[in-house]
Amino acid sequence: MTHSLRFTAKLTALAAATLATCAFAQNANVTLFGVVDTNVANYSASGTSSVNRVGTDGLTSSRWGMRGTEELGSGMRASFWLEGAFSGDTGSIGSTNTNNQSTGSASGIFGRRSTVSLAGNFGEVRVGRDLTPVFLNLSDFNVFGSNGTGNVGGLFYPLFSSQTHVRTSNGVSYLTPAMGGAYAHLTYALGENSNNSDGRYVGGRVGYRAGPLAAAIGTATIKYVAGDQTQTTAGASYDLGMAKVMALYGRNKKATVDHSALHVGVSVPFGSTDLRLGYTDARVKGGDGAAQIMVGVIHNMSKRTALYIDASQVDNKGAGKNFSVSDGIKPVTAGGKSTGIEAGIRHTF
Amino acid sequence: MTHSLRFTAKLTALAAATLATCAFAQNANVTLFGVVDTNVANYSASGTSSVNRVGTDGLTSSRWGMRGTEELGSGMRASFWLEGAFSGDTGSIGSTNTNNQSTGSASGIFGRRSTVSLAGNFGEVRVGRDLTPVFLNLSDFNVFGSNGTGNVGGLFYPLFSSQTHVRTSNGVSYLTPAMGGAYAHLTYALGENSNNSDGRYVGGRVGYRAGPLAAAIGTATIKYVAGDQTQTTAGASYDLGMAKVMALYGRNKKATVDHSALHVGVSVPFGSTDLRLGYTDARVKGGDGAAQIMVGVIHNMSKRTALYIDASQVDNKGAGKNFSVSDGIKPVTAGGKSTGIEAGIRHTF
Amino acid sequence: MTHSLRFTAKLTALAAATLATCAFAQNANVTLFGVVDTNVANYSASGTSSVNRVGTDGLTSSRWGMRGTEELGSGMRASFWLEGAFSGDTGSIGSTNTNNQSTGSASGIFGRRSTVSLAGNFGEVRVGRDLTPVFLNLSDFNVFGSNGTGNVGGLFYPLFSSQTHVRTSNGVSYLTPAMGGAYAHLTYALGENSNNSDGRYVGGRVGYRAGPLAAAIGTATIKYVAGDQTQTTAGASYDLGMAKVMALYGRNKKATVDHSALHVGVSVPFGSTDLRLGYTDARVKGGDGAAQIMVGVIHNMSKRTALYIDASQVDNKGAGKNFSVSDGIKPVTAGGKSTGIEAGIRHTF
Repeated sequence: MTHSLRFTAKLTALAAATLATCAFAQNANVTLFGVVDTNVANYSASGTSSVNRVGTDGLTSSRWGMRGTEELGSGMRASFWLEGAFSGDTGSIGSTNTNNQSTGSASGIFGRRSTVSLAGNFGEVRVGRDLTPVFLNLSDFNVFGSNGTGNVGGLFYPLFSSQTHVRTSNGVSYLTPAMGGAYAHLTYALGENSNNSDGRYVGGRVGYRAGPLAAAIGTATIKYVAGDQTQTTAGASYDLGMAKVMALYGRNKKATVDHSALHVGVSVPFGSTDLRLGYTDARVKGGDGAAQIMVGVIHNMSKRTALYIDASQVDNKGAGKNFSVSDGIKPVTAGGKSTGIEAGIRHTF
Repeated sequence: MTHSLRFTAKLTALAAATLATCAFAQNANVTLFGVVDTNVANYSASGTSSVNRVGTDGLTSSRWGMRGTEELGSGMRASFWLEGAFSGDTGSIGSTNTNNQSTGSASGIFGRRSTVSLAGNFGEVRVGRDLTPVFLNLSDFNVFGSNGTGNVGGLFYPLFSSQTHVRTSNGVSYLTPAMGGAYAHLTYALGENSNNSDGRYVGGRVGYRAGPLAAAIGTATIKYVAGDQTQTTAGASYDLGMAKVMALYGRNKKATVDHSALHVGVSVPFGSTDLRLGYTDARVKGGDGAAQIMVGVIHNMSKRTALYIDASQVDNKGAGKNFSVSDGIKPVTAGGKSTGIEAGIRHTF
Repeated sequence: MTHSLRFTAKLTALAAATLATCAFAQNANVTLFGVVDTNVANYSASGTSSVNRVGTDGLTSSRWGMRGTEELGSGMRASFWLEGAFSGDTGSIGSTNTNNQSTGSASGIFGRRSTVSLAGNFGEVRVGRDLTPVFLNLSDFNVFGSNGTGNVGGLFYPLFSSQTHVRTSNGVSYLTPAMGGAYAHLTYALGENSNNSDGRYVGGRVGYRAGPLAAAIGTATIKYVAGDQTQTTAGASYDLGMAKVMALYGRNKKATVDHSALHVGVSVPFGSTDLRLGYTDARVKGGDGAAQIMVGVIHNMSKRTALYIDASQVDNKGAGKNFSVSDGIKPVTAGGKSTGIEAGIRHTF
């Protein structure tokens, strides 16, 4: 027992030293995290020369950031989340938008997300720059999400410029707590332009998530002096175990432009490999549309590292609008096609 | 004892593994830190429409950074401090100024502070970009510091443009060691413009800090081809326990412009809540001035998270200069008023 | 034994708590690192006034970054490296180049390096922005490396603009595994400009590194619509113990411009102090050249902190080209000289 006590003392000291080393070495309040995703790609389109690229963000957007949560007692907690984009192929910094307008582009050190939150039994109040609730349906219910040649951006984002399709600055959001699988997410964001209502975003979504089923619908109105915009998205997914199926609908309106798209997708796991297939049909009211097919394979080498290959083709249905695979080049011929193929690596830390 | 030895070996291995995990997991030489501060605000002024804002930096400037200190032996130590600003409401990157002139604005990843230091019994020599000694009086002896609607900037910063009121780039500073409560801080910084002396800053402050009393006075001269500037600040605070009282004086001169301001403030703690009250009077020699009242409450939810609400009003005394609450809008009528109110959250990590 | 078991349980819990603290406190997958290097300097040149500077990067380029490696099993590993430049004297952000052309300058949060790699017995495949293999000879075999008044840039970089002398964006590199001291490093990078081949870099080096000897040769061709460039570098170093000697040759060609330089250098350690001496001779085919002498002292206060002083003089041999010390000013008189001296501190974390 004497020995044991001595060992206890010695080991306690050792463990204490370990703790001290940790305390010295780190700030326990912050987690540093990120993703680096790069690829090689080829894009081609009817009537143009094809191009080769060393690209970024084929599977997941490259990012780095800091985040943390503090327990305040009584079930309350405070959180922060700072996350910025960069290009994995060039190291360039991402952007942000300061006024929810096309004039507000700025160098964004934390342009992907800059929020501070208070949460508790009442839900969460979040202030700052963040993804919009309506956009979250696009990333949740499109099998290719918002990255790569098959991404949702190609045919779901409207044909007119909008700075608030993905994120808003100057926003206050409320997220309900889990209510038996149901949830709601509301965002009110200010443009802070010379016209007080210019760039004001009011949107929300309600959804349900339990077991294999997820479904949500969202809508937003953005006030613009140049013409108000509305955006509606709805989607659902069901995990059958041997495959996950999903469907997504989106509609964007501004003045006389009315654009909608419908997507169906399936993801099939084979051990550590996932096969992804998707089809999207886009229509412009009173005009032409386009259809897109996408196929991809993700091979997870580990929890943190994946290899991927994706291909996608857009078939422009008419002469009016030449849609293209999202990171690629546009056909110059009426009713042409554009094709993209990318192979890359995504590493998470 | 055989068992004990086995346990010792096992536990030592465990502790060693722990150490190894820590060593792998962290760089013991650097601490990552930051602040996220966002709020909702309303600003109004006579003769204009009021505006609503989702803002940043109401209580403390949002920031992130890395810092560390290395013991060199013989009482010497080397330190570094890299700190950058960002807007909590948009995620945009802060700025810096590379030549201490209005032409030198640049994207500042560490625009708040970028220094490396050597310190020992002789004091500290610090090289790089840093707060000026004269500015430090403004933040030390104004009850609202340099943030929010009641901040020192509104009435203490001069009416002419100056890039060196808060920080200098290209600087070498000397800070004395603690000398029984007395201290001095000198800064010499270069503009590095085509005219060799353009943008050169020479300034310093001397102070005393012991027990409940703090007092300091500082002055600086900045050489400019467009006209030299001088800046003088002096302040004192006394902590009575039930309240902390403070007073601050500042004067800025350039050619025929001579501007001074006087501030008195009090901070009263009620448990984890602080009440802050302040009054500032600003005068322009041979012209009009302004007066500002400020009131605010800080509620500390924890050591790292605080809620706050601040309000401030500026009363412009004449037609000459329409001062405004610092983050707000200016009255368009002679002798008008401007008012700001903000409620927010500050989270530190 | 009962006691021992109790101790075991207690200490295991303690160690587990320690591990938990570490896990909470840090992300084991990422190491945060950096360098801050600042100095005071004087630069002068024939026919001009000398200037004083508070500068950055005299010994090593100021930087910050994140990096990490993940073991994937079977001898495979994935790695990432994100590293950005900043100015230690101003805190301004570094740049990158997105298209390997002079038009592609951008704010570079990780402009020094942004790569993700897969490595194993086959070697390493690295994708993104990185130093070029041909440049690595310049930093390996010049005694002053690529920093400070004596740096390799002054006389080795060509007289024409090139964005790919140091780094390429959009690159894929292959690095062989260690092969008994021999190694090879190949890079293929795309310009991604409107002309498909504009800005395309193809280069590589082969080398040998074992015991006291290191030697390498590299060459690259960069396609430009404005005129192709070729760059060749070769160097060797030998560590005699009491001194390390090195020699470096470099040649750059573009259309009718043909520029070469030869450097010899020696580094002599005296305990924790290193003395560095170098001489470089540069020639422009059919024109004038220049010679540069450099001398410097590095005093290592610790493994992480060093003081340094460097001086350099460039002697322009003719009227054609007024070379200058790399961070300094150029002579305005034919056959003039330029001189630089810097004293600073470098701190690594």
